Amino acid sequence: MNPMNTQEKHLLFLRSALTEENPFIKTKEIIDWVNSRNFATNVSINRITFDRLKNWNTDNDFYSLNHDSGKFFSIIGINVDTNYGEIESWDQPIINQPEIGYLGFITKEFNGILYFLMQAKIEPGNVNNVQLSPTLQATKSNYSQVHHGKKPIYLEYFIERDRCEVLIDQLQSEQGSRFLKKRNRNIIIKTNEEVPLHDDFIWMTLGQIKRLISIDNLINMDTRTVISGIPFGSFDENTINFFNAIGNVSSTDFSKSMLASALSKYSYLNSFDDIIAWFTELKCKYEINIRQISLNKMRDWIISDDEIFHKDKKFFRIIATKIEISNREVSRWMQPLVEPAQEGLIVFIVKKIHGIYHFLVQAKVESGNFDTVEMAPTVQCLTGNYKTTPNNSLPYLDYVRNASKSQIKLDVIQSEEGGRFYKEQNRNLIIEADNNFDENLHQNYIWVSLNQLHTFLTFNNYLNIQARSLLSAISFM
Amino acid sequence: MNPMNTQEKHLLFLRSALTEENPFIKTKEIIDWVNSRNFATNVSINRITFDRLKNWNTDNDFYSLNHDSGKFFSIIGINVDTNYGEIESWDQPIINQPEIGYLGFITKEFNGILYFLMQAKIEPGNVNNVQLSPTLQATKSNYSQVHHGKKPIYLEYFIERDRCEVLIDQLQSEQGSRFLKKRNRNIIIKTNEEVPLHDDFIWMTLGQIKRLISIDNLINMDTRTVISGIPFGSFDENTINFFNAIGNVSSTDFSKSMLASALSKYSYLNSFDDIIAWFTELKCKYEINIRQISLNKMRDWIISDDEIFHKDKKFFRIIATKIEISNREVSRWMQPLVEPAQEGLIVFIVKKIHGIYHFLVQAKVESGNFDTVEMAPTVQCLTGNYKTTPNNSLPYLDYVRNASKSQIKLDVIQSEEGGRFYKEQNRNLIIEADNNFDENLHQNYIWVSLNQLHTFLTFNNYLNIQARSLLSAISFM
Repeated sequence: MNPMNTQEKHLLFLRSALTEENPFIKTKEIIDWVNSRNFATNVSINRITFDRLKNWNTDNDFYSLNHDSGKFFSIIGINVDTNYGEIESWDQPIINQPEIGYLGFITKEFNGILYFLMQAKIEPGNVNNVQLSPTLQATKSNYSQVHHGKKPIYLEYFIERDRCEVLIDQLQSEQGSRFLKKRNRNIIIKTNEEVPLHDDFIWMTLGQIKRLISIDNLINMDTRTVISGIPFGSFDENTINFFNAIGNVSSTDFSKSMLASALSKYSYLNSFDDIIAWFTELKCKYEINIRQISLNKMRDWIISDDEIFHKDKKFFRIIATKIEISNREVSRWMQPLVEPAQEGLIVFIVKKIHGIYHFLVQAKVESGNFDTVEMAPTVQCLTGNYKTTPNNSLPYLDYVRNASKSQIKLDVIQSEEGGRFYKEQNRNLIIEADNNFDENLHQNYIWVSLNQLHTFLTFNNYLNIQARSLLSAISFM
Repeated sequence: MNPMNTQEKHLLFLRSALTEENPFIKTKEIIDWVNSRNFATNVSINRITFDRLKNWNTDNDFYSLNHDSGKFFSIIGINVDTNYGEIESWDQPIINQPEIGYLGFITKEFNGILYFLMQAKIEPGNVNNVQLSPTLQATKSNYSQVHHGKKPIYLEYFIERDRCEVLIDQLQSEQGSRFLKKRNRNIIIKTNEEVPLHDDFIWMTLGQIKRLISIDNLINMDTRTVISGIPFGSFDENTINFFNAIGNVSSTDFSKSMLASALSKYSYLNSFDDIIAWFTELKCKYEINIRQISLNKMRDWIISDDEIFHKDKKFFRIIATKIEISNREVSRWMQPLVEPAQEGLIVFIVKKIHGIYHFLVQAKVESGNFDTVEMAPTVQCLTGNYKTTPNNSLPYLDYVRNASKSQIKLDVIQSEEGGRFYKEQNRNLIIEADNNFDENLHQNYIWVSLNQLHTFLTFNNYLNIQARSLLSAISFM
């Protein structure tokens, strides 16, 4: 197979992003299909005590919580010291899962349009039982078949590399406040072979995926992170006008401007060198030191028979669960899950400059970050108590609260990964700055164009998962 | 001061790289000046026993070797397990210096040409006592004046940011086989102020610096790493022909082609997405686990009264030294130094494709790497015994050994940092592939254009310090 050149690849992604018509399944039918599967699926999660958590152990008087096999993940305690933010030192539980996760899409061209092979996947912690996920979710052990376990479906397309062309292959981070230096490999491959369509799998265009991200809790986190990394290239104005002309006639002004912003090689505020210099300075300024401690020695956290919780019931708690999922067949297992104390909020404030949308990016330190600082949304209070936070204590939160309806360009509830988190949801907002927006930025904030954000995404590990979730939701139609 | 736009900045760097004429000091005079300073400087290094190393302690029966202040650096033992390379497990001493180092140049425009403020700096381990270094070499503590110690000269230009414009500010790695996850901040700032010229400081063009890198042991490692990160932009063919026309008349074909390769936005083999996918796959494939152990528990290493050495006298040894440096005044102190077992070799094999030089990049795992794999030169046997290594055991070493004289485009001996390493030198080679070069690449190797390498440099922490040293030596004149 002749590999495409970069521009062909960008155009292929772009055409798919601008296509909602799908002869295999209409967008409305996808929703019905997922709903019907939700209806046919029963997920029962019962809280149990830690001592009944089969195959899990709390070694050394609750030093940490581990699977007997040494695989999957563990819950460990950490002590955090940092010069970032108002709180200089705290303890917390965190998920330790050193294995890289593999999140992969098989794609295939039909009549010149690229289709993504989506899976309707059940995860115990999902708010809706079933969400649309990538073709493959696997651990490195699954992927490399080290342990000769059950082979994930479609794995062979990813492993036998001469069967497919690699379109993207990136390392990206997970939630820094919940995972210790965890990263996932985000892969999109393209095949020319006939692909047998297993139950629970359908072909969707990128335009359909982006359309459905505007519906609450339907497209899972893994899908959102992978598609956020899709590059569309950088073009001049004439080319962008051309793409706009061929775009869907139902386009809104906002989506047309976002298309231009994704594609435009021009940025009007900060160059890459400026942004990298800003980022370097903050990486040097902020320090965070992490040290593993015993779960039972964490300050302000209490371990009861069936949960590990903060003394003020803040942040999140670790619970032990017995899970039974039944649809065509029944599966049962037990595992710990992380349950948030409340819903979170992530917001990008955007501003159009010479027709190009720029995003107000925050440099944010989180305890589990691989390299101290990542680029985060303007506002990120993940399971923080943003509804009761006093005004101005968090930059731009007050501005977001007072935004008028016409400024709200996206407003959707999205789930975190249902294999680790129990019904964790975040409200995703994109807010357009109005004329009252204060041009003097808070410390740690910078304007970055959408095209520049895509470039940082390509170079791996710059944007955090919350920023990527918001970017994935931007539709060009 | 009005900041330059990106293109103005690139052109300013480029003009300086194409300028050797300097009204302040001619290139020849710089060499004489450094020679005279070398002559006037006496560095005496005497080996002592560890127990006489004043202000240093070997706590807990030689668990590690530390400065009493807890500052500077320490020598620790590590146990390394990896699935990369032929040796799966070993122990070694490594330098632990968690503080980010600051390497900074003040630059200033005189008659439209950018000049770099260079320092003639003495370091105890230097082969030549005096080498040309950046304006500022400081630790983060120096820089932020946390400890109110002696203020490094010219520091205020870097700290009072409204006095200067930041041209580059990057985080880059140090030697992964010697330093544990050490990174330096590489900064170039530009001032419009009058800058008082202290003793030991001179203004040089980038063209002069690059010219002098072709002389053995004259431009220090810190200078080489900072200037390797200078971006020159990406242009089309017409613009490049224009630059070639204004370039120095003494240009060789090689330097003209390298100029075109640095500037050309075209690459003919692999796109960024291809290279990043290649890199991601290797980052996922290779694992390295580091665990601190006691220096006195390291397998195959022996601690005597005055050195820590490998039982086969391979790699390097840690020695204790008493240092006296005298020129205008006398300074005396004691410190450990790392002495290599022999000279090392670093080589880029390059190949011209459609007039653009591509570099054969190796993905290399080293024990102290911040993120497992970095992009390294085609051949890197740092203090390895390359002269006695059997043919073919190291990819491309044999090809390099048999290269004809006309293939050798650069051949110069360079020093590692003289504050940590005792007379450590590497032979730096650039070899042009001939028609006999095998197009089937070894595993872990990929062709990357010079312009692409500059982009990876800009995005931080992709290229290792050996690769950057070689790139810094490429002259466009």
